[in-house]
Amino acid sequence: MAADTVVYDRLAETALPCDLSPQVELHSVGKKKGHHPVQQEEINTLLVRLAQQGKRVVRLKGGDPYVLGRGGEEAEALADAGIPFEVVPCVTSGVAVPAYAGIPVTHRQEVVRVTMVTAHESKKEGGPQVRWDLIGADPHVSLIGYMGVTSLPQVVEHILESGMDPKMPAAMIERGTTSRQRVVQSSLDELPQAVEKEGLRPPALFIIGSVVRHADKLDWFGKRPLIGERMVVVAPVGEMGEALEMNGVELVEVPLPVTPAARVVMGALPLTGCIFRSPDEVEAFEEERDSQGWSPEMVAWCLTPDTTTRARDLNWLQVEQISDSPAN
Amino acid sequence: MAADTVVYDRLAETALPCDLSPQVELHSVGKKKGHHPVQQEEINTLLVRLAQQGKRVVRLKGGDPYVLGRGGEEAEALADAGIPFEVVPCVTSGVAVPAYAGIPVTHRQEVVRVTMVTAHESKKEGGPQVRWDLIGADPHVSLIGYMGVTSLPQVVEHILESGMDPKMPAAMIERGTTSRQRVVQSSLDELPQAVEKEGLRPPALFIIGSVVRHADKLDWFGKRPLIGERMVVVAPVGEMGEALEMNGVELVEVPLPVTPAARVVMGALPLTGCIFRSPDEVEAFEEERDSQGWSPEMVAWCLTPDTTTRARDLNWLQVEQISDSPAN
Repeated sequence: MAADTVVYDRLAETALPCDLSPQVELHSVGKKKGHHPVQQEEINTLLVRLAQQGKRVVRLKGGDPYVLGRGGEEAEALADAGIPFEVVPCVTSGVAVPAYAGIPVTHRQEVVRVTMVTAHESKKEGGPQVRWDLIGADPHVSLIGYMGVTSLPQVVEHILESGMDPKMPAAMIERGTTSRQRVVQSSLDELPQAVEKEGLRPPALFIIGSVVRHADKLDWFGKRPLIGERMVVVAPVGEMGEALEMNGVELVEVPLPVTPAARVVMGALPLTGCIFRSPDEVEAFEEERDSQGWSPEMVAWCLTPDTTTRARDLNWLQVEQISDSPAN
Repeated sequence: MAADTVVYDRLAETALPCDLSPQVELHSVGKKKGHHPVQQEEINTLLVRLAQQGKRVVRLKGGDPYVLGRGGEEAEALADAGIPFEVVPCVTSGVAVPAYAGIPVTHRQEVVRVTMVTAHESKKEGGPQVRWDLIGADPHVSLIGYMGVTSLPQVVEHILESGMDPKMPAAMIERGTTSRQRVVQSSLDELPQAVEKEGLRPPALFIIGSVVRHADKLDWFGKRPLIGERMVVVAPVGEMGEALEMNGVELVEVPLPVTPAARVVMGALPLTGCIFRSPDEVEAFEEERDSQGWSPEMVAWCLTPDTTTRARDLNWLQVEQISDSPAN
């Protein structure tokens, strides 16, 4: 259904549709560098106010709204205000991120139970404490921890105290499913040190359980040859895009003229390149080059000689001319 | 990406795209009434064989492939055969079904831990036993049980023995998210009896935890006025479809001529009606009326007088003439 406004979190930025009409109002309520996040109370109030203005509101969250996503509080605020709503369940990061790291969170005859937990929230404001003693006592579980970078050493200590095998396989995954995905794997007892050594930072989640050992065999995403590349391309992109994605490129398909939503998506993570099919396309992005996500080191991949010439004229530092049929 | 063949489970039938080209081979590997399901070994072999024939294979599962879905075994078979694959994480029923019953599986200051478990699998073939004693000892958890209709009484007994409050809110949900959704809510100790009284049957899942109490306030799906209606309509359907879906109708949008995939979707659950905009549309479905999902009691909702006439001529038992602008 058409929306009049979208209220989105920082982690939902890459999920905005780049072709969203510029008529749709965008409200960012996520944390940005050097800014405090919008408080939950304020988000609730914003949602109610927008709806009471007669707007159709989409509340876009990173992951599922009800799995450690505070969607219940937002739904309650709407219900209290008498505003009808619908909940769209989504893939939660605790499911998606391990899959992209090659880890099946359950495996027959091995793990038939998954526990998802946030170590983060429970410690604050007198909330219920996580019973690490119970969690650590069962080896046939996959334990998935949301937002766990800073609390990891403590969590591991608690779990080892509860009797979990120190050599239980474990992993921490930063920015899973994206072009910036980083995976650190080790035994449980050595995970905090390994994570610190690699300098993993939020957003990240950990998974502890015997299923982690399958990652070497089942890693399909991290082994793609162009993993780490995040490129802008003018939509529609067709078969070339399919071939690039199959090889691990994260493509941001941007309509022209560039939409506000596409700017949010482009700025959500660092870009490594732009694919240009014509001189016009080079020019169309000229004003974007100072925006978030863009950097002077980005490569201009040019598909025709006159496109290459235009990119050089406009002082792109790295210009590469390529054929437009990488699949062949 | 285009597929040459789709291998799908029973619970994935409603997720097949109705406009899937008839050129795409369909392989059903799910359980049907009176038939045994295809064994996991056979599914693994089928996937490898199809891929080795050079086909692009989509393996469509109900829910997430790695959350109690045996996708890990299938991925291993492919890896062993040297076949490249990609895993598409999906919304698992343990997340989607509670949301459609108005239950947020976590709630701040209340539940910060979710456990998903299958009671079913662990008992068979010497697999790891679920540690109900550990599960029952923590009241600040949402416990979600997959495939739990027959094992429910035993599970509840174990959990109560482990110290869980007998009055803990609990629910069992049959065919959640569909037009046939049924929800039974009660206290934990009375759930098995309530489920038996209502005659709930698989597929169903249970959720035990204080969050269940939010359902009365946050139930957005079950309260829709036309909930339970499952209607066929010729695609594309536009605003009328949106209005019907907002009111709780499950629409099956079928292209003409009717595709094999649309037949699978129509047959997946009982249909309650057909929306006809012209006499041609009535005729287009004439040959479908003996198929699975269809029944003589279905209502023909006709949008023009000549459509009504045609439906009566073709002996539809229930014919209703309606205006085509329910949104106004």
